[in-house]
Amino acid sequence: MPQFLDTTDPAFDAGFAALLDAKREESADVDAAVRAILEDVRRRGDAALIELTARFDRVELTPDRLAFTAGEVDALCAEVSAEDRAALELAAERIRAYHARQMPEDAAFTDPEGATLGWRWRPVGAAGLYVPGGLASYPSSLLMNAVPARTAGVPRLAVAVPTPDGRANPLVMMAARIAGVDEIYRVGGAQAIAAFAYGTETIPAVDKITGPGNAYVAEAKRQVFGHVGIDMIAGPSEILVIADADNDPDWIALDLLSQAEHDASAQAVLITPDGALARAVAAAVEARLETLARRDVAGASWRDYGAVITVRDLEEAATLADRIAPEHLELCVAEPEALAGRIDNAGAMFLGPWTPEAIGDYVGGPNHVLPTARSARFSSGLSVLDFLKRTTTARLTPEAMRAIGPAAERIAEAEGLGAHAASVAARLGRLNG
Amino acid sequence: MPQFLDTTDPAFDAGFAALLDAKREESADVDAAVRAILEDVRRRGDAALIELTARFDRVELTPDRLAFTAGEVDALCAEVSAEDRAALELAAERIRAYHARQMPEDAAFTDPEGATLGWRWRPVGAAGLYVPGGLASYPSSLLMNAVPARTAGVPRLAVAVPTPDGRANPLVMMAARIAGVDEIYRVGGAQAIAAFAYGTETIPAVDKITGPGNAYVAEAKRQVFGHVGIDMIAGPSEILVIADADNDPDWIALDLLSQAEHDASAQAVLITPDGALARAVAAAVEARLETLARRDVAGASWRDYGAVITVRDLEEAATLADRIAPEHLELCVAEPEALAGRIDNAGAMFLGPWTPEAIGDYVGGPNHVLPTARSARFSSGLSVLDFLKRTTTARLTPEAMRAIGPAAERIAEAEGLGAHAASVAARLGRLNG
Repeated sequence: MPQFLDTTDPAFDAGFAALLDAKREESADVDAAVRAILEDVRRRGDAALIELTARFDRVELTPDRLAFTAGEVDALCAEVSAEDRAALELAAERIRAYHARQMPEDAAFTDPEGATLGWRWRPVGAAGLYVPGGLASYPSSLLMNAVPARTAGVPRLAVAVPTPDGRANPLVMMAARIAGVDEIYRVGGAQAIAAFAYGTETIPAVDKITGPGNAYVAEAKRQVFGHVGIDMIAGPSEILVIADADNDPDWIALDLLSQAEHDASAQAVLITPDGALARAVAAAVEARLETLARRDVAGASWRDYGAVITVRDLEEAATLADRIAPEHLELCVAEPEALAGRIDNAGAMFLGPWTPEAIGDYVGGPNHVLPTARSARFSSGLSVLDFLKRTTTARLTPEAMRAIGPAAERIAEAEGLGAHAASVAARLGRLNG
Repeated sequence: MPQFLDTTDPAFDAGFAALLDAKREESADVDAAVRAILEDVRRRGDAALIELTARFDRVELTPDRLAFTAGEVDALCAEVSAEDRAALELAAERIRAYHARQMPEDAAFTDPEGATLGWRWRPVGAAGLYVPGGLASYPSSLLMNAVPARTAGVPRLAVAVPTPDGRANPLVMMAARIAGVDEIYRVGGAQAIAAFAYGTETIPAVDKITGPGNAYVAEAKRQVFGHVGIDMIAGPSEILVIADADNDPDWIALDLLSQAEHDASAQAVLITPDGALARAVAAAVEARLETLARRDVAGASWRDYGAVITVRDLEEAATLADRIAPEHLELCVAEPEALAGRIDNAGAMFLGPWTPEAIGDYVGGPNHVLPTARSARFSSGLSVLDFLKRTTTARLTPEAMRAIGPAAERIAEAEGLGAHAASVAARLGRLNG
């Protein structure tokens, strides 16, 4: 059974605080192991990569076998049904259209003092996308990383995907093809992150690494951060559904379970002002859990971290939602836009009963890589901005120097930075001399 | 003497690679000490903060003395000259005007399938700005952090600034007043970061922490990251000047020294196609070093990490600049915009001889918190975006679900995520039933 909380209960505050503080993720102690792998690949390049791949993935490679050939990708893509391909193409096109609108504009303007100021955005030179092997090898994740990178104009995109026991996922290959990625390496784990960060004889280094992975991959990304850029390090998935009385309990139950089924550490929470709906949804979850393929995972998540919270009204629901700052927020209420306007913290919002969270995972258009563990308070989902960087620009005329230079010289002197002051004073001296 | 390199020299590649790889920063081994401080403040709150402040800053506080009173701030501001105040006000207004233009727009649009998609930006709820005490206590840094936060609309801004031996910096107080910050705590070091991240009885926790600091502060920010947001962790300052023959060597020398004087680990590099200018600038640096107040710091930086590179032409200069990816890039050439267009990687560009880097430190308008250590390849300077977060939004009509739901259901099935598929199928069933 999940936790049942009621804001009218005197014990609510303590129970809700415990829910917020629940530590859902054990931090695996892999620091030292990862450090050794990074160092090995940095020092020995391809040779280390090949040895580690033999050890962890049971695949014997040579330098010229690190990358999939076009023929190998062709053969794998041929295994994908026309229907699956069409679904991935629809998803890719919708993701592309949404992310294209996110492209920021450059700026340049001249102020009254004569300073021409601005900024410009440029794509990173190369991005490396990590795709897990095994069960969590999702073509949708590849699209959600590669399509924004392409849309941002990144000239070089490489994918690393391990092939445990030599098995490759045809759907992932098809997603790569649809996204226009043809540089694909059959390596994984911390060693793949090392190859992207430092380069090997065969795999050129990249500037930015994105994509999900296991504890080793996450720790490797943490350790190479600074040397290259990384996206966020995501925790277990979360969904908060705020629902009024006028909902089908089975729909809400399925939406909760669609996050619970990701991971036993995932968290699904329902907030509702309607006690009857709360009970009906809880019952519907139990009923669905009986037949769900991933019932062990989803059941553990729901039992250990699930919660059903009854509130006095939607205003109270909004306040609690802001404290939870959920990765996914479904607003199944009569006026979802109005409620959305009262909530500050959420990675992605799904408005109304016809927008289940699963739509956002695949075909909605917005990104499904989103801030977890309450980090929506201060961070955002993946976007084209993650594949761009901004350079600010400034150009002063002599007149602009005359107008604003003296203030710069004065602050520099006040801060005790003499060369700063002198670099301005030398120009002012020329103007006044 | 700095390093002299020439691209026509057969040994150039090795010398340039060594320059890029030079490790300028010793990573102090403060992890464990910082971890203990964070844990102590998290557990004991104000009591720990007060004890640690007595130990490190030699200041005895009580909970009601942690924050500066309005009267204390008034008294410190009264020590600031009218001229210094006016210079800081000019700087703040120019920073505000520039950053106001960076504010991103929300979006909402309905696609042909009937999906209404979009995103919205909201400020973080609270930001904590760290300002170092001692020598590097700069009012300009306070403005460069606080003004963008205010411009982004952050409702609560708090400053932590240590007061070693009870000494407070009047200019920092004046900058806080000008930026509209009145919540100022006399605490510093890792303990201040802990207070911002976890909160104490007196200091409420924030969502995002920004600002420079020493090795303890940097490590504390690294350790609390995830629990709260942080800005970048900046390394020693850098400047690259690309100059053609038509320049005053003294101006270029001062611009190089204005970064070298920050820190003995700072790096100043000149690239020029003109051998005579290269020699003249090197001589001018030596001459200026004789009288510069911070000649010990600037001299060490120039001797240990400075470089003068002569190139065949500006095209070659652009290629090298992209590999250096400097924090600050001055283009003292006849057509700086054209050269800027050929360079991808730089935190901030300063175009033409009338735009010394020091202008950007204070009054230009763009931010002076910029990516160091080659991270301009993949990251950007501080901006309003650092104090905002984006929530994506989606709302499907039943018709939109009919149009795109089947593709979502198919991908979910292909990925083996049954509840995802069922949450869509349940809606489609209603439409078709």
